[in-house]
Amino acid sequence: MDREIVKLIAQAGGIAIFPHVSADGDAIGSSLALALALKNAGKKVIVYLEENIPTVYRFLPGTELACFYDTQDEVMDINIALDTGDVGRLGTRGDAFFEAPCTINIDHHVTNTKFALLNFVDDMSASTGEIVYTLLKKLKLGIDRDIAACLYTAVSTDTGGFKYSNTTSETHRIASELLATGIDIGELSQRIFDNTTYTKLKLTQKAIELLELHENAKLAAVAISQADLQATGAKDEDCDGIVNIGRSIEGVEVSVLVKEKNAEEVRVNLRSKTHVDVSEVAAAFGGGGHKRAAGCTVKGSLQEVKEQMINVLKEKLQ
Amino acid sequence: MDREIVKLIAQAGGIAIFPHVSADGDAIGSSLALALALKNAGKKVIVYLEENIPTVYRFLPGTELACFYDTQDEVMDINIALDTGDVGRLGTRGDAFFEAPCTINIDHHVTNTKFALLNFVDDMSASTGEIVYTLLKKLKLGIDRDIAACLYTAVSTDTGGFKYSNTTSETHRIASELLATGIDIGELSQRIFDNTTYTKLKLTQKAIELLELHENAKLAAVAISQADLQATGAKDEDCDGIVNIGRSIEGVEVSVLVKEKNAEEVRVNLRSKTHVDVSEVAAAFGGGGHKRAAGCTVKGSLQEVKEQMINVLKEKLQ
Ligand SMILES: [Mn+2]
Ligand SMILES: [Mn+2]
Repeated sequence: MDREIVKLIAQAGGIAIFPHVSADGDAIGSSLALALALKNAGKKVIVYLEENIPTVYRFLPGTELACFYDTQDEVMDINIALDTGDVGRLGTRGDAFFEAPCTINIDHHVTNTKFALLNFVDDMSASTGEIVYTLLKKLKLGIDRDIAACLYTAVSTDTGGFKYSNTTSETHRIASELLATGIDIGELSQRIFDNTTYTKLKLTQKAIELLELHENAKLAAVAISQADLQATGAKDEDCDGIVNIGRSIEGVEVSVLVKEKNAEEVRVNLRSKTHVDVSEVAAAFGGGGHKRAAGCTVKGSLQEVKEQMINVLKEKLQ
Repeated sequence: MDREIVKLIAQAGGIAIFPHVSADGDAIGSSLALALALKNAGKKVIVYLEENIPTVYRFLPGTELACFYDTQDEVMDINIALDTGDVGRLGTRGDAFFEAPCTINIDHHVTNTKFALLNFVDDMSASTGEIVYTLLKKLKLGIDRDIAACLYTAVSTDTGGFKYSNTTSETHRIASELLATGIDIGELSQRIFDNTTYTKLKLTQKAIELLELHENAKLAAVAISQADLQATGAKDEDCDGIVNIGRSIEGVEVSVLVKEKNAEEVRVNLRSKTHVDVSEVAAAFGGGGHKRAAGCTVKGSLQEVKEQMINVLKEKLQ
């Protein structure tokens, strides 16, 4: 962790925190953890959201420190972007972010564009939560049970529950310390991971029905139309994780979910297991992500984009 | 860990290890880990299986030390039962176990009957793997990458991938040390957890189709017949984990899977989330387990047993 960043945060009176758009567990968890710790240290602190906090994370402590940006809001000493790979991921808050005299970008995406005045990007960290943990240690700020619950959410979601290859000895060491605060891990895990709805299960049932195996069952593909969503009563956000169904099959190396956004656009989610770099595939279509998890939005009909992705991935698998 | 047990193991020349019947990740993982470590220490060591090692765990190091018991086999100095709550869980190996002059029972089940000469039962340990880890430390035996892979399998499976409430700060501290040996956690997790087959997915699809919600959606029930298994091409072992589907639904406290074994017997698997003690329910039907995960085998038709379980669980939920 950069000394200058630690020093500036320690000296600041007011700090605003910007998680990325479509905030996930790492973005929300690390933002709320940092906000709670800075507030405990007597600072003025606010988390600027792009959208409402996803239902699943609303139980987390610190949500009262989060709100939507208003142009009338006071400019803070420092604006910190968390888990945000590039300015585009700030969505409509891009201008607001650069209003502060000092901007800091703390992230773990290898593709980070270092868009702020000061940037700390550690792509060896499995989550931004891990980096925030280290930052709190450097700031000598205590980690209480509330902060631990937020950091645990960040650390556990970005490692797929400590299962992805980004999980390190340090990830578990941090988790060990977080659990020592007395957080109720059974309840927390269930809230974070066992939060399926009956509707989402019905979508899972549909996805399995639609699942295709290609290339000697090394490639799994699922195409979900708006009609499928309507038939199961599912919402767009219910598609989160559907791509993992294909990936969970023994022998499958790449799983792709193509989801109809509207008549012209299709959202593509990609996952790989051991060797295919899906971030390259996503990047070729203007998207991004990690080697084992990436995504992009592609123009075309659901059927067209599905076939396009299958062809590109078949080549990658050869 | 009992000093007497550590001393006896340290002094023994030959040791046989007995995991429980229908061995799970903890039973197999802790048995192979202990076997590998004792072999590295120059001892004669053998793991006596009741059945073949489940496909999913066959990649583990140390499987060459496992075999079926033969009455002609040499009697060892010590027989150690691992992860085995009672003699019944030794299956057909009960007599063989008691042939050794010294028998040791190392386990973490609260219901353990302490059936051996020396017994070490720590129900605060999330897995027998954690206890074996401690034992290896006491024995001053090194944990190499092979042993770490086995212990990680034990520790991670019995905690549901670090998600169950039995997971402690110590669990993660151990995992942190195991990862430091350089085990490939992405590959290991995928082998252990992402090992679904297409057939098993089809069974999942069927299970979601059959899933019933009762008691204001606090109780989830799935009844799977032999005909359902045949229709999907699934085997009995494919039903492992199906009970977790119901448990994964937001608001569900208890999930029950009733599975037709044959015309007269039904296997019941129970899971709870935060407060219902399902081991009590299982015990009332001659079964056993933990508060949040238990099972029993009940006489009757699938439909009868399903209704019986729903009625008993409805009462528990009131
Ligand atoms: Mn992240
Ligand atoms: Mn066990």
